[in-house]
Amino acid sequence: MDNVNVEALTQAVLGRIFIELEASGRHVHVTREQAQTLFGHSLTPKRPLSQPGQFLSNERVTVIGPKGEFQNVAVLGPERNEAQVEISLTDARELGLTPPVRSSGDVSGSPGVRLVGTNGSITIPQGVIAAQRHIHMTPQDAARMGVRDKQVVKLQVFTQRPLIFEDVVVRVNPDYATFAHLDYDEANACGFQKGDLGRILP
Amino acid sequence: MDNVNVEALTQAVLGRIFIELEASGRHVHVTREQAQTLFGHSLTPKRPLSQPGQFLSNERVTVIGPKGEFQNVAVLGPERNEAQVEISLTDARELGLTPPVRSSGDVSGSPGVRLVGTNGSITIPQGVIAAQRHIHMTPQDAARMGVRDKQVVKLQVFTQRPLIFEDVVVRVNPDYATFAHLDYDEANACGFQKGDLGRILP
Repeated sequence: MDNVNVEALTQAVLGRIFIELEASGRHVHVTREQAQTLFGHSLTPKRPLSQPGQFLSNERVTVIGPKGEFQNVAVLGPERNEAQVEISLTDARELGLTPPVRSSGDVSGSPGVRLVGTNGSITIPQGVIAAQRHIHMTPQDAARMGVRDKQVVKLQVFTQRPLIFEDVVVRVNPDYATFAHLDYDEANACGFQKGDLGRILP
Repeated sequence: MDNVNVEALTQAVLGRIFIELEASGRHVHVTREQAQTLFGHSLTPKRPLSQPGQFLSNERVTVIGPKGEFQNVAVLGPERNEAQVEISLTDARELGLTPPVRSSGDVSGSPGVRLVGTNGSITIPQGVIAAQRHIHMTPQDAARMGVRDKQVVKLQVFTQRPLIFEDVVVRVNPDYATFAHLDYDEANACGFQKGDLGRILP
C-alpha cells in the first residue's frame, strides 16, 4: 500500500456504498420578519450544520401547542420565506397537534402553533410538520448510487436496532452534502448512534 | 357465497398471513409486595389487555429519573416476581437514563429508578429497559407461519410510514394471543394506527 492514502481510499469506497445517518431533533425555521419580532434581530449562527450554509442559531423559542409546550427549541438558519416547525410524532402527541408527514417546505394545510422568543411572540397559522425521512444528496452521489431527485427508496440502516425504512425521499441538489435525515422517533426506533451508516436497497 | 360466513373466512385467511400490530406505551410491572408499599393494596384490574390474563390496573405511578419524571404511568397486572419499567428511548432521554434494549424479564444490569404511588414510594435497583420489539404468538400461528420460539424475524408493517423491522423476536406460548408489540418510538417511526397489520418476511 505504498504511496496510497489508505484512509482517503477507504472513505472514497465507502462513500459509494454507504450514506451517513443524522438525527434531527425538533426545530423551527422562521422568516426574517418573524426573527425580528421574536428576538429583536436576525438569527445569529452558533455552529454550522452538515448541509452547507445551514446553521444552528443562538436563538431559541418556546413552542406552545393546545396540550403542552417545549421550551428551548432550536431555531435553524438562515431565515426562510415561511415558518416551519419540525417535530416528531411523539412530540406532536405531547403538544396536542396532529401534523402531516411532509417534505420540508410543504406546509399547506398543516397545523399552526404559537412561538415565544426573548423579544416577542407570534402565532403561525400553519407550518407544523413531521418531516418525511429523506436523503440529501449531491448530484455526484446520486449518479453513483443510481437515484434521482424525489425518488422514493428503501434505506437499510446498520444500527443497534436494525431496520429498513421503506419511504425515504431522495433530494438531489448541488448545494447539499450527502446525509440521510431521520427524526428522533425514527432514530430511536433503529437505535441510531452518531456515525451510523445506511445504504439504499435496490 | 351461499352458506359461507364470508367475514369468518376472511379473518381466517388473513390470520394466516398478517399479524396485528399494537403499540405499548411506557408502563410498569411491580411485585405484590411493591404494590402493597406503593398503593396499600394489590393491583386492581381496570381493563383486560390483548394478552390473556394481563390487565391495565387502576393504579398509576410517577417514575422519577435523574433528569426528569413521568407522572400517571400505567401499571400492568398481574404482579410479577420482579419490577420492570418499560420505556421508549425517547422517554429514556427525558428521564436521563440509558436502558438496554431487552426482552421482557431480562433486566439484569439495567438501570434502576424511583417509583411513587398513592401510598408510598420505592427505588428499584434495576429493571428499566426499552422492550425489544417482539411478536407474541400462539403455537398454532407459529406452526402456520413456520417460526419458532425466540426466532428473530423481519416484520414488514403496512402503515402510513412503511418499513421493515429487522430484529423482531418471536415468543411462542399457548397463553399468548398473536400480536406484534412496538414501543412508541417504533409506532411513530412507522406511523402506526390501531388495526394496522404486518407480516413476517421469509
